[in-house]
Amino acid sequence: MSKLDEALKEIRPVSPELMARAQQRLDCLTKPKDSLGRLEEFARRMVAISGRMRPAITRRIIFTFAADHGVADEGVSAFPKEVTRQMVLNFLGGGAGINVLARHAGAEVKVIDIGVDHEFGPQSVTDSESVTCEADGLIRMKVIRGSANMRKGHAMTREEAVKCLEVGISLAREHAGPGVIFGTGEMGIANTTPASAMAAAFTGARVEDVTGRGTGIDDRTYNTKIAVIKDALTVNRPDASDPLGVLAKVGGAEIAGIAGLIIGAAATRTPVVVDGFISTAGALCAYRMNPAVKDYIFASHNSVEKGHRIMLESMGLDPILDLNLRLGEGTGAALAITLIEAGVKIYNEMATFGEAGVSEEKG
Amino acid sequence: MSKLDEALKEIRPVSPELMARAQQRLDCLTKPKDSLGRLEEFARRMVAISGRMRPAITRRIIFTFAADHGVADEGVSAFPKEVTRQMVLNFLGGGAGINVLARHAGAEVKVIDIGVDHEFGPQSVTDSESVTCEADGLIRMKVIRGSANMRKGHAMTREEAVKCLEVGISLAREHAGPGVIFGTGEMGIANTTPASAMAAAFTGARVEDVTGRGTGIDDRTYNTKIAVIKDALTVNRPDASDPLGVLAKVGGAEIAGIAGLIIGAAATRTPVVVDGFISTAGALCAYRMNPAVKDYIFASHNSVEKGHRIMLESMGLDPILDLNLRLGEGTGAALAITLIEAGVKIYNEMATFGEAGVSEEKG
Repeated sequence: MSKLDEALKEIRPVSPELMARAQQRLDCLTKPKDSLGRLEEFARRMVAISGRMRPAITRRIIFTFAADHGVADEGVSAFPKEVTRQMVLNFLGGGAGINVLARHAGAEVKVIDIGVDHEFGPQSVTDSESVTCEADGLIRMKVIRGSANMRKGHAMTREEAVKCLEVGISLAREHAGPGVIFGTGEMGIANTTPASAMAAAFTGARVEDVTGRGTGIDDRTYNTKIAVIKDALTVNRPDASDPLGVLAKVGGAEIAGIAGLIIGAAATRTPVVVDGFISTAGALCAYRMNPAVKDYIFASHNSVEKGHRIMLESMGLDPILDLNLRLGEGTGAALAITLIEAGVKIYNEMATFGEAGVSEEKG
Repeated sequence: MSKLDEALKEIRPVSPELMARAQQRLDCLTKPKDSLGRLEEFARRMVAISGRMRPAITRRIIFTFAADHGVADEGVSAFPKEVTRQMVLNFLGGGAGINVLARHAGAEVKVIDIGVDHEFGPQSVTDSESVTCEADGLIRMKVIRGSANMRKGHAMTREEAVKCLEVGISLAREHAGPGVIFGTGEMGIANTTPASAMAAAFTGARVEDVTGRGTGIDDRTYNTKIAVIKDALTVNRPDASDPLGVLAKVGGAEIAGIAGLIIGAAATRTPVVVDGFISTAGALCAYRMNPAVKDYIFASHNSVEKGHRIMLESMGLDPILDLNLRLGEGTGAALAITLIEAGVKIYNEMATFGEAGVSEEKG
């Protein structure tokens, strides 16, 4: 059995009974019942996901997958393609948005080259001298040097898509453990184009309703982007009942890596906080492969990007934040992790009515 | 001039020019323009509030004002009145929701007895032996032992309301300083009743539209609550153009303390994060005394409590979080502080396009 099939078979829905037991404790804490709203939901879910009556978050890891997209040649982005590579170096240097917000959340950032169209310099191998290379700290798991132009044919082969999924699964297996929470993130110039194509393919929504302005394109580029996505759907004919096919035909390497990470998270009972629009395309693909992944997912925020909410709703996921973000990288995930952690601390640290000598509600 | 009038006269709107200069820096950072949405707004506003081009948050203080309400005698709450006192002791013991979330946010909690109907034991004064009293750590600034029953007459005299406002102003002046951010909070059984009455009085909304279920009351108690608020408005005839009168007639001591804290924050150019429904009644009162306080306010969240959004909208404030919270105490403020801080860090710590060698948008 392939690594992918194995992981998909391992996934189990979480126990509603554990959620109910967690709520029993929440109802004994010195507050009116349900008055901490979604923080209580986060706590219940973290109990059920971890299988521990006293869950804790002790390690937070954001996986930022980077890849290029052949479709960038069609002029669908406001930024030139080399920005993918440049931003990878910015991530490694600690100067990007995700670095700042991950530090704020106490999270590590793992930067993965899964499909950048650039050969980063060789990793330093000697301990004896201080060799600094162009991309120290980069996780080198390149499957492709950028996807092919999906306007003209499949973005990836099915084999490439499986390899990318398995990169995500491997990373999840390597880093899963008690107290660990994952966040997803990505960098890839033009990647809102495949994400919108996947959204249309999976949900059946009109291309116009799931296509936004990405990094901030003008009207002319926006119209081009819509035409390109329509062409890609016509040329490739993705079939929603074949999620791997959708991913290969109109997806991308980083989206596949994210889908794999989510599958791996669910297989290892690790909570995973899904970032914005692109990450949610990955989540939706994973969900179509096995709907039980949903039990392990927290939807971090509601992106400005059109079509994000449509994908979230198709999975029944309710985003935690709504701050008009549209950066990606994992920035929304980093912010949401601090709120999920707040819910876990409420559950673990608040006094009960009995402990605090506080009178309960009048019967 | 009274302490209150002096503070109100000191308040100046923030400089739009400073906000524009802050945005210039934000636009040089390695991200698409405006892609960090409200985090950028927080950063701009923190620059303008502090008057510093490199603002920082180095101290976070939540002020939780506690008071009782004569109107509790009308049976408007699901909890007995002694819970106010019991919860004050829970705050001091560190076991309440606000303690947990403040610790998570790196914030201190200051608990103020401004109007609890209970004499807390004397403060310990000897250093020579370890004397623990009932309420070590309590800030004792009691103005009244609970308000009067507003169904039968004024909740407070104008003089009492001014004294409570000045408690808040004094606390703001004492704790203001570079890098400080305030949060508001409260505890007072039955205090959604005065807050709803104030909302109706200030906004002209129907009582039914600004009255919710507080800590979780049943239908019968809810109908009683609405009748009580209507009676209180009929008996006291609060006039929206006399905010001090509204506060005295149908408000409460902790709500006045919060209004004072906000006035003091604005007078000392200190950002203040306003918690939920009750705190927003205080904010609305402060705003009606001097609308420029708005420039210093961050609305932390959108409470489940009906009427919260009506008050926020009447001030043009957009809440940061929407997590179905309805606990009060300052819990929403504590959570929002971490997001405001995230915005400040983005502003200070992200690399610019130039620094990171990243290509800018295509012209």
